[in-house]
Amino acid sequence: MSKKPKINAAILIIGNEILSGRTQDTNTSTLSNWLNSIGVKVEEVRIIPDVEMKIVETLNFLRTNYDYVFTTGGIGPTHDDITARSISKAFDIKYEIHKEAFKILQSYYEPGEFNKGRQKMAWMPEKANLILNPTSGAPGFNIENVFCLPGVPSILKSMLGGLNNSIIGGEPIKSLTISLKTVESEIANSLSKIQNNNLEVEIGSYPFFHAGKLGVSIVIRSEDQNKIDNCSSQILKFVNEKKIEVVDR
Amino acid sequence: MSKKPKINAAILIIGNEILSGRTQDTNTSTLSNWLNSIGVKVEEVRIIPDVEMKIVETLNFLRTNYDYVFTTGGIGPTHDDITARSISKAFDIKYEIHKEAFKILQSYYEPGEFNKGRQKMAWMPEKANLILNPTSGAPGFNIENVFCLPGVPSILKSMLGGLNNSIIGGEPIKSLTISLKTVESEIANSLSKIQNNNLEVEIGSYPFFHAGKLGVSIVIRSEDQNKIDNCSSQILKFVNEKKIEVVDR
Repeated sequence: MSKKPKINAAILIIGNEILSGRTQDTNTSTLSNWLNSIGVKVEEVRIIPDVEMKIVETLNFLRTNYDYVFTTGGIGPTHDDITARSISKAFDIKYEIHKEAFKILQSYYEPGEFNKGRQKMAWMPEKANLILNPTSGAPGFNIENVFCLPGVPSILKSMLGGLNNSIIGGEPIKSLTISLKTVESEIANSLSKIQNNNLEVEIGSYPFFHAGKLGVSIVIRSEDQNKIDNCSSQILKFVNEKKIEVVDR
Repeated sequence: MSKKPKINAAILIIGNEILSGRTQDTNTSTLSNWLNSIGVKVEEVRIIPDVEMKIVETLNFLRTNYDYVFTTGGIGPTHDDITARSISKAFDIKYEIHKEAFKILQSYYEPGEFNKGRQKMAWMPEKANLILNPTSGAPGFNIENVFCLPGVPSILKSMLGGLNNSIIGGEPIKSLTISLKTVESEIANSLSKIQNNNLEVEIGSYPFFHAGKLGVSIVIRSEDQNKIDNCSSQILKFVNEKKIEVVDR
């Protein structure tokens, strides 16, 4: 049986409101969790302002360095929504009215309500594929390996289901968390040795303070469940030897 | 009176747990809000994995392109904490035990508790300036225009106060929000004209759905309060003409 290749992605969050601290980005974790579940590993996220040159430059770097790029934000009707135009420029493709998007929007709104602002949401790079929006009409779009989604978290979430068939993922990344009643420095050495002996799994160590309790969560990640289980046994062995309490696994 | 120069910054979030979607980053908005308040505008955020080459490459780009860089994450005691070592490499500076950090950590822990894992937190780029940590002992560090902070949000927050004197900010960026009972497409045209006539302010438009209410928040940002007020009057003029209800301002 041939093994599926590793597939990666970058996320590009476009919006001054995230950089100013006014709005807390939650789209990164939504997209990352969803991509993980279909076997795509997010390897970089960038948050940049609504500035055309910056969007063009960043998108062109990301789309040539990662298998997929997902952008969020800047596809609404107002003057600061410049993502579609900037992406056309990045690809050097005509920016024009997308007939299908125009029809979708036209039928979404009441007669007479489909004004110039709303029509702007039908402007896209030529020949873009639409990403349907079950929540609020205005579609996102896909061109080559780039998928453009809106910034409003609830709308973005509603559009991901429709994308499952457009993304070819690799082996889904599995993970196992072992939570211990200890501090990081108690386990740092043993964990480091285990990581060195298990280079194909990724071992992360994260201190937590929860409900008055102090502990460390060890997260083991890999495409291969056997490797995770093997690594987990090695960890539980030293945990047992050191008489450290396992809070949760 | 001479005007203060514009000062910008980038944030570099280092950590696999953010990219995997396991952990929701909140340090970006904490840092952005704080930096805004002292007159530093965040112009880019990057989230990258705990991979040395990636940290070196990204840091070297950001530190030469922005006035300040703030990193979060990767300065704890475990094997996946490689920020300090990677930053030494980025600056091509010796990575060694920082005597003052060593003393601070030594006196923070009970005798006999200052083990090898904990000692790792005293390793830093040579001649780094310490950023004191009132919450959990282990200091962050600063070298040239780069400030390295921990990833745990509560600890990071506790360290910012001590940094106010190390950062030379420009004029603080002020903002005014006008919330309207309308939809974006109703105001898109008028807003676009006002933005074109007021290029020195940044006007953002953000739809909201709150407590069953639909509306748009217009955010005006500038270092100059007069320009904000002037722009605000122009917006309120068309809002009034269009008989749009102002929900909040």
